[in-house]
Amino acid sequence: MTSGKALHERLGAEFLRRIESGEWPEGVQVPSEARLCAEFGTSRGPVRQALAMLRQEGSLVGGRGRPPVARKVARSQPFASLLSFTQWARSIGRLPGQTTVEVARRRAAPETAGRLGVEDGDTVVEIVRLRTLDGVPAMLERSAFVWDVGRHLFDFDPDSGSLYEELCRRGAGLDHARHTIDAIAAEPADAELLAVAERTPLLRVRRQTFCPDGEPLEFSDDRYLPSLTNFTIENTAEGRTVAGRHSTGEEPEH
Amino acid sequence: MTSGKALHERLGAEFLRRIESGEWPEGVQVPSEARLCAEFGTSRGPVRQALAMLRQEGSLVGGRGRPPVARKVARSQPFASLLSFTQWARSIGRLPGQTTVEVARRRAAPETAGRLGVEDGDTVVEIVRLRTLDGVPAMLERSAFVWDVGRHLFDFDPDSGSLYEELCRRGAGLDHARHTIDAIAAEPADAELLAVAERTPLLRVRRQTFCPDGEPLEFSDDRYLPSLTNFTIENTAEGRTVAGRHSTGEEPEH
Repeated sequence: MTSGKALHERLGAEFLRRIESGEWPEGVQVPSEARLCAEFGTSRGPVRQALAMLRQEGSLVGGRGRPPVARKVARSQPFASLLSFTQWARSIGRLPGQTTVEVARRRAAPETAGRLGVEDGDTVVEIVRLRTLDGVPAMLERSAFVWDVGRHLFDFDPDSGSLYEELCRRGAGLDHARHTIDAIAAEPADAELLAVAERTPLLRVRRQTFCPDGEPLEFSDDRYLPSLTNFTIENTAEGRTVAGRHSTGEEPEH
Repeated sequence: MTSGKALHERLGAEFLRRIESGEWPEGVQVPSEARLCAEFGTSRGPVRQALAMLRQEGSLVGGRGRPPVARKVARSQPFASLLSFTQWARSIGRLPGQTTVEVARRRAAPETAGRLGVEDGDTVVEIVRLRTLDGVPAMLERSAFVWDVGRHLFDFDPDSGSLYEELCRRGAGLDHARHTIDAIAAEPADAELLAVAERTPLLRVRRQTFCPDGEPLEFSDDRYLPSLTNFTIENTAEGRTVAGRHSTGEEPEH
């Protein structure tokens, strides 16, 4: 019984892998039970159990009387992986890196003050970093922090890793975030750091991160080479929404 | 009693409007109960009930003993309003419009075939439309439909309104969609139709729409003037995600 249970679970995991990799394309019937039994050298029981399990979680649909059809079920990326470039890069098996251009304590300009909910001229911490994937420039990040959060950055080498992880270790309560996505032409400083021509289209994501009480803690303006990264929103008629940041797997156009 | 109940609900609606409009800024304490009583010429009871109601739904947080702090609670846009430009424009009080550049029945090119899950050379319907907000060009839409869905478009004047509504009326089961967002330089045809310079950065949203069984029905490539429209993703540490399309309220840069 125990090995029977393990078998249908192993079969289910393998079937799911095939659906998610596209080996069993979405919208196309999967092989018949008889073919699956032959392929895995097993009886119908475990194959049926595995198919029923995937049907229950929505990865197989339709097919009364004939083989069901594969459907990719979107899985939400964890909150941290939309906030943290480092955690996101690791989650997709790429090596994250960064070169810090500057960390500055300065008086907030009006736009930054507005986004951070502080007064014009209040002290904030601003940081500019070039972020890389496997050593290749991928994104230019400009972040501003309210002083209570940002002051921790002066005790930390921002070239050494994830600001997000460091701030969480120091107890900054990053609770929710709003990402606004548009496109912008590379300005001279962007072009130089990202090693592209001026006015190259960049994918811009502006983010406000809030503490649980709704006070903004951070505002960032991240400019991505769109040839390396995109964002997805998946939604359903029933109202489920899932969002993610993705690597296109392409090399940048230089 | 009835008028008392109506009063706290009216107060609650007004307070929520102030939070959502930013009149009561996020992260900032709202006025004291005493000030609200004076402003609305009412006793403490209804003001307290209204504040408690907003606290329960998360629009007010913190403030034990002192006034609570405003927090914007993101509201999901309905599924249709991410799919349908017409419905989205109406929902924000703008007048949607369109000029159809072409509707064509043709054999699917390899990329389109792949996105629609049909064979190379299968018959598909392709449509190109310039979409406007209050008469101003906002987006260039190129959609391809599988034949069973797209054939309905030949019985319909695409200049007259929403393809999405027309397809739903004819029973096309649009169930879930995947939007992939990046940036692209305006190609010559884009530039001419959107009345911008070539290589102007555009916000591109590629969308696959699926029927409940996971079969793709439509693939579209929408190119927005980023000065008029952006997309947002809001997420929380607890895992709630909300996405939307927004008007920036700005005029296009010409």
